[in-house]
Amino acid sequence: MRIKNLNLLNFKNYEEESLEFSDGVNILTGNNGSGKTNLLDAIHFLSMSKSAFHSSDNQSLKRGESFFSVFGTFNKNNTDYLISTLFQAGKKIFQADKKNYDKITDHIGRFPLILVTPYDTDLIREGSEERRKFFDSLFSQIDKNYLLSLIRYNHFLKQRNSLLKQFAEKRYTDFDLLESYDEPILEEGFKIFSWRKNLIKEFLPLFNNTYDLLTHRKENVSLTHQSDVADPEFKITYKNAIQKDLILERTTKGIHKDDYQFLIEGQSIKSTGSQGQQKSYVLALKLASYHLLSKYSHTKPLLLLDDIFDKLDEERIISLLKMIDGDDFGQILITEAKLERSMEYFKNIKKQIRIFNISKGKILSIQNV
Amino acid sequence: MRIKNLNLLNFKNYEEESLEFSDGVNILTGNNGSGKTNLLDAIHFLSMSKSAFHSSDNQSLKRGESFFSVFGTFNKNNTDYLISTLFQAGKKIFQADKKNYDKITDHIGRFPLILVTPYDTDLIREGSEERRKFFDSLFSQIDKNYLLSLIRYNHFLKQRNSLLKQFAEKRYTDFDLLESYDEPILEEGFKIFSWRKNLIKEFLPLFNNTYDLLTHRKENVSLTHQSDVADPEFKITYKNAIQKDLILERTTKGIHKDDYQFLIEGQSIKSTGSQGQQKSYVLALKLASYHLLSKYSHTKPLLLLDDIFDKLDEERIISLLKMIDGDDFGQILITEAKLERSMEYFKNIKKQIRIFNISKGKILSIQNV
Repeated sequence: MRIKNLNLLNFKNYEEESLEFSDGVNILTGNNGSGKTNLLDAIHFLSMSKSAFHSSDNQSLKRGESFFSVFGTFNKNNTDYLISTLFQAGKKIFQADKKNYDKITDHIGRFPLILVTPYDTDLIREGSEERRKFFDSLFSQIDKNYLLSLIRYNHFLKQRNSLLKQFAEKRYTDFDLLESYDEPILEEGFKIFSWRKNLIKEFLPLFNNTYDLLTHRKENVSLTHQSDVADPEFKITYKNAIQKDLILERTTKGIHKDDYQFLIEGQSIKSTGSQGQQKSYVLALKLASYHLLSKYSHTKPLLLLDDIFDKLDEERIISLLKMIDGDDFGQILITEAKLERSMEYFKNIKKQIRIFNISKGKILSIQNV
Repeated sequence: MRIKNLNLLNFKNYEEESLEFSDGVNILTGNNGSGKTNLLDAIHFLSMSKSAFHSSDNQSLKRGESFFSVFGTFNKNNTDYLISTLFQAGKKIFQADKKNYDKITDHIGRFPLILVTPYDTDLIREGSEERRKFFDSLFSQIDKNYLLSLIRYNHFLKQRNSLLKQFAEKRYTDFDLLESYDEPILEEGFKIFSWRKNLIKEFLPLFNNTYDLLTHRKENVSLTHQSDVADPEFKITYKNAIQKDLILERTTKGIHKDDYQFLIEGQSIKSTGSQGQQKSYVLALKLASYHLLSKYSHTKPLLLLDDIFDKLDEERIISLLKMIDGDDFGQILITEAKLERSMEYFKNIKKQIRIFNISKGKILSIQNV
C-alpha cells in the first residue's frame, strides 16, 4: 500500500498544506522546528486514528485554532481509499470514504504502518508497559481479534480492581462477586498469552535476521517473552493470590504484568548496550515488525523513518538504506534535517526520490531526484 | 582546567587503556558500541565521583571482572592533581593525590565539568525530579554549602516522612515529635529557596543569550522557577497542611516539590517544541550552566559533548562549534561516530584537534590535526 496525498488544516504548525507523494522514497527536509515530524504524525493519524506522540487530540491543534482536519488517499491493491479526520470542540470524527466507522477498532490494521522515531529507545529505557504497548499495537494490527480480546481483558480487569478497592474501603469482601470476574479474565488471559507466545516465536527469527543485516553480525541479540501465565499451574497461582490482591487493592497476577526481555550478548541491553547498540536494537525491532505485519496484512506497510541517522555509525546507515531500498519494502517517508550532508547516502538508492523542502509549516519546494 | 591523561582498568568495555589528551579539542570516534561514551563517563567519574549514566558502581564493572580502577590527572591553575578511584567487592575508594577524602562532598565542584548527552531531553520529557536534580547538581558545584544544606533538608524530610508513615500504621500521632522537624525543615528550605531564586535569576540571561547565539534568535525561550515557598505566607501553608500530610503519609509542601518550567514562545516546550527545538533548548541549558560554573569556579570547566550532531540542523551545528571554539571555553571532548562526514564542520576550528580512533574498548590510532 501507499499514501498518494495528504491534506492538512490547522494541524500542529501547519495552517493549510497539501502534498503529493512519490511511490518510492519521500524525503522531508528543513531546519529544526520546521514541521518535518508533524507530517509523519499526520500520516500516523490517518492510519491509527491518533497521534504517535500525544495521547490527547487537543495537542495536535494549531495554536489559537478551534478545529483541525487531516485527510489523505491510501492506495491498497489498486483501490483508493479517502481517509479523513476532523477534530472540533473536543470531538473527533473519523471517516473512510466519507462514511463513519461503527467502531474505530475496525479501522486499526486496515492501512498498516511502521513508524521509526528517536523515542523508540524508550522501549529499552522505560518500564514493561512501554514494551507491552509496542507488541500489543503490532499484534492488534495483525489480528483484530487480539485487539478485541485485549479490550475485553482490560475491561474485566478494571472492574475487578475497582471491586478490590471498594472492598478495602468498606472493610467487607464479597468473594462470590469477585470470583465472577475470574473466569472471563482467565479465559481472555490464556488467549492473549498464547497469541503473544506464538507471534513472538515468529517474530524472533525476523528480528535476529534484521539485526544481523544491519550490523554485519557484530553482536548476538535476543528477546524473550515473560509471563505469569507460562506457568502450567497459573490458574492456581492466580486463585491463591486473592489475599495479596485484597491487600494491594489490585490484581497482581496475569498477562497485564507480562514483559519482554531485550538481550545483547546474553545481558540486558538496557544496562550493557551503548546508545548506538540500543538504537540498532530498536530499529531492528521496528523493521522486524514491518516484515511480520507485511506477511499478515498481505501488503507492504508504509515505512516512516524519523531522524534515522542519529547515533548510527556509517556502516549501519549504509546497511539500513540497502535493506529498505530492496523489494521487501514499499513506499518510504524519511525526515532529515541535514540533507545536504546525507545526500551521499541517498544517491545510491534505486527507488524514485522526491524531496520536500519545509520551512515553518510550509512546503517551499519539491524536487524529484 | 583540563584533563591531561586518563587510565582505565576493567572499566565498562575497557580492559586496560591509557590516553593523553590535547588541551584543545579531543574527538573520540569509532563505530556503535566501540566505547566512545564510556571514556566521557570515566572522566565524569573522576570529576563527580560517580557515573553519569548508572546509579550503581557495579554497572561500570567490565563483564566477568571483580574490580575496576580509573585514574587521571587534572590540571587546574598550573597545578597537577592525580584523581583515582578503585571499586572492588562493592566498595569504592576515591582519592586525590593518593589521599582519601574525609567526605566525598569535599570533592564535588573542585574539578568542574559539563556533560552534554543525548539523554538531556529527559529534562523536558520527564517529571520535575529530573529538573530539580539538574539544577541541584549545578548549584552544588557552585557552592558546597548548597549541597550540605540540601543533604540536611533531605535528611530531616526523610525522618518526618517516616514518622508520618509510622503514625498512620499505629493510628496514633505525636504532634510534638512531628513539629520538632518543622523548624530545621523550614530553615533549610528557606535557604535553599533563596539560593535557587537568586541563581536562576543569574542563569536566565546566560541561557537566553546562549539560545539566541545557537539559533540566530529563531525562537523566544524562557524559564521559571516554581516553588511553594515563593508564597510569603508559606510558613502558614506548611503548618496547615499537617492533616493532609498525615493522610498522604508524606510532607506535601516544601522545596522538594519545586519545579522549573521550560517555555518556548510562552508555551510549554514539552508539548509544543519539535525534537530539534527541544535539543537546542537543553543544549543551551547545558552551555549556560557552563558559563555560570565557569564564573563561580574561577576556571574553565571541562566540556564533554556526546553525540552533539543529533537532531540539530546545519545552522545550529555551525553556531555551536563557533561558540565552543571561542575563548570562553577551554578543553573539549567530543564523541562522533560519523567523523568522516563531519570533518567539514571541524576543519574550521582554530583550537588544536586530536582524534582518537576507537574499536571495541581499544585506542587503535591517535592523530593530531
